[in-house]
Amino acid sequence: MPSVKIADQWLRTILSELYGRRNLTRSEILEATGLNAASVSHTLRYVLNRGLLLKVGEMKVRGGRRREVFSLNTEAGYFIAVDLEGDHIRFALTNFLGDVRCRWEEPLGFRQPLDPRKLIDGIGRVVRDLENSRRSRVLAMGVSYPGLLDSEGRLTAVNLGWTRFPLVNLLKETFPWPLFLEHDKHSCVLAECWHGAAQNYRNALFLIAEGGIGLGILVDGKPLEGAREFPGEIGHWKISPEATDLCNCGQEGCLEAIASSPNIVRQYLERSGRPRSEPAGLRVTDIFEKARQQDPIARAVLERAGRMLGLALSHAIGVLNPEIVILGGDIISAEDILLPVIRDEIERRTLPLSLEGVKITVSQLGLDVRLKGAASLAFREMLEDPKLLRKVCASALPDAGVDRDAAPFSTGGVPISDR
Amino acid sequence: MPSVKIADQWLRTILSELYGRRNLTRSEILEATGLNAASVSHTLRYVLNRGLLLKVGEMKVRGGRRREVFSLNTEAGYFIAVDLEGDHIRFALTNFLGDVRCRWEEPLGFRQPLDPRKLIDGIGRVVRDLENSRRSRVLAMGVSYPGLLDSEGRLTAVNLGWTRFPLVNLLKETFPWPLFLEHDKHSCVLAECWHGAAQNYRNALFLIAEGGIGLGILVDGKPLEGAREFPGEIGHWKISPEATDLCNCGQEGCLEAIASSPNIVRQYLERSGRPRSEPAGLRVTDIFEKARQQDPIARAVLERAGRMLGLALSHAIGVLNPEIVILGGDIISAEDILLPVIRDEIERRTLPLSLEGVKITVSQLGLDVRLKGAASLAFREMLEDPKLLRKVCASALPDAGVDRDAAPFSTGGVPISDR
Repeated sequence: MPSVKIADQWLRTILSELYGRRNLTRSEILEATGLNAASVSHTLRYVLNRGLLLKVGEMKVRGGRRREVFSLNTEAGYFIAVDLEGDHIRFALTNFLGDVRCRWEEPLGFRQPLDPRKLIDGIGRVVRDLENSRRSRVLAMGVSYPGLLDSEGRLTAVNLGWTRFPLVNLLKETFPWPLFLEHDKHSCVLAECWHGAAQNYRNALFLIAEGGIGLGILVDGKPLEGAREFPGEIGHWKISPEATDLCNCGQEGCLEAIASSPNIVRQYLERSGRPRSEPAGLRVTDIFEKARQQDPIARAVLERAGRMLGLALSHAIGVLNPEIVILGGDIISAEDILLPVIRDEIERRTLPLSLEGVKITVSQLGLDVRLKGAASLAFREMLEDPKLLRKVCASALPDAGVDRDAAPFSTGGVPISDR
Repeated sequence: MPSVKIADQWLRTILSELYGRRNLTRSEILEATGLNAASVSHTLRYVLNRGLLLKVGEMKVRGGRRREVFSLNTEAGYFIAVDLEGDHIRFALTNFLGDVRCRWEEPLGFRQPLDPRKLIDGIGRVVRDLENSRRSRVLAMGVSYPGLLDSEGRLTAVNLGWTRFPLVNLLKETFPWPLFLEHDKHSCVLAECWHGAAQNYRNALFLIAEGGIGLGILVDGKPLEGAREFPGEIGHWKISPEATDLCNCGQEGCLEAIASSPNIVRQYLERSGRPRSEPAGLRVTDIFEKARQQDPIARAVLERAGRMLGLALSHAIGVLNPEIVILGGDIISAEDILLPVIRDEIERRTLPLSLEGVKITVSQLGLDVRLKGAASLAFREMLEDPKLLRKVCASALPDAGVDRDAAPFSTGGVPISDR
């Protein structure tokens, strides 16, 4: 039935546009989608009737006329997002638009393999207190994973202590929802495309500097996959060949050995003559705070880390020719200290022609970046599949329990602390 | 007429496959193209009748049967290729399959803008002595350019001394052939895809190290374009931040300042205490020869250059995750000396997971790499355009003067020296 297929494409285009831009008038939708007026009217009526779309207000336009403003119904469906990178694994329930409504996090034991029960439990926690009528509208699950996922869905990841752990089978057997997975570097750059600073860009870099250092790469609108989905590995660039900082990988002079968060702490402790173990629990944010209080050692260590990050980004800009570079990870809580150094080093080190027009900015998505990426992935992937697209559209039918005047969403899980 | 359109696609697929693989049996064509037997038979008859295809022999297969082997008629058409990179500009006439049949090269004056008459003259030279019957079968011109080509076809390139020179207009006004242009980094990597080591790979790096140093990048089967068609700029990576080698760009420690051909010569002269100007005309190939004769200074300079190239490639492999790395430029005449050092440095510096399965090899296309890329570009682009595709097919009709028993092609231009 060709007409149904065309309608699928209208739905996809319009839902996708409203997802990214939030509030749109009919004429903005016409312009953004390039569809004709009849197709747009037909589709808007269809999604309004099913409770997916809301009229959220009116906008005055020139000539005194008023235009209706449309927005997706944030409660038309929910997504589960899981982020397996870092020293904590994170869980979230998001609304239809990928806004985090409820979070849970689980610390990883130092060099202990992650007990899969913690993964199951964390997912359970973020949906546990959801009312039944809403729980039936959990549409899908998105997972952002580190390391390497093989063709049989088995994950190998250092931070989780897993080697070929059957992640996909476990999740599919335990939970009823469609499952979508994406490498963490891709999750970051896609989250920035869909919700953040990389909207409207086709070529972007996303630097994530925290426990490890990596680069998410957007090439011509798509994440760079490389030969084996393992690009963006700049953490072990020998950025300072003469440096003696020892890296986890066994080599010296790696970017990570100088500019990752644990190594910033290490250098601070070493330079101030304190044993590495004391004071226990010193975190990178403490070093940022000391630098703000003009502690010369903290300032010197961060200056060095910032210069090395800037040099690495200068190389990445030269080879990849992006339009925008977005800084993420722990850096986002030290924008005041690190951004000027990084920017200065990039400008000093990069060929002017390579740097021309390149925007350098800090991510506004915070620690949720990969969770938002995972939730958005699930939304976007559902649109692409005709069966799942129908599931999305069916989910918010009034007789399925949508109550648009319901009280604001009540969260079930325990919010994670803002670090 | 949908049937004609389908036939266009059959033609494209079959010509493209025969172009890359040279000799194929009917069953190999069936397998490689995925077309059905009737479409293949129809198309083979069509191109045989028009003189584009030849039966070049028979192959014994299992069971004692014989199968006809087909090949494109190398004289079914000709292409003009122009390479504007380097300290010489190069011109070639190639046969239908991109084999260079006649070359001309024109040295560029040191820091003097290229006189456009030399460009016109060079193109004229490679077709000048072509017999009339063959000259009418020059199908198109491909140009490989350095620098930046703007949307109005104006070229800015340091080696040519040109700023917004109206290259496209000049060539279109002077010559009657369809014109196709490609950036030199893309030409290299496409030539390797179509004729060289990157056949059957989707993610490849092509290092060109000569007067300058750059990287051609193939991502998912296509050249990486970046935001402004300016990727692969690794020549100004500060690969050795502590080095004091002064680069043309005004900075110190750039890869080019250590590993480009003129800088290899410079270091040799400096370390041997000779003034830079003496002996006049010392070339990088002379340094290679001295190293082969165990000259310790030549060996040390090349060791350093090789290590820096290896380190840069290690970075490029980490960030781009290719399947194959191809070394080109002046390196190809020092494979014996440089390849072991480069390979060793890559292995020492790269994360094993990033290096797994990566093939490292030297280009077999020699100094013709960009000329072959430009000629192939013209062939490939003609196939894509329905009108030009018909021109390709018409060109070799017997009544247009094809003589398949003619003597081997006679060259018109003066061959360039093999450096």
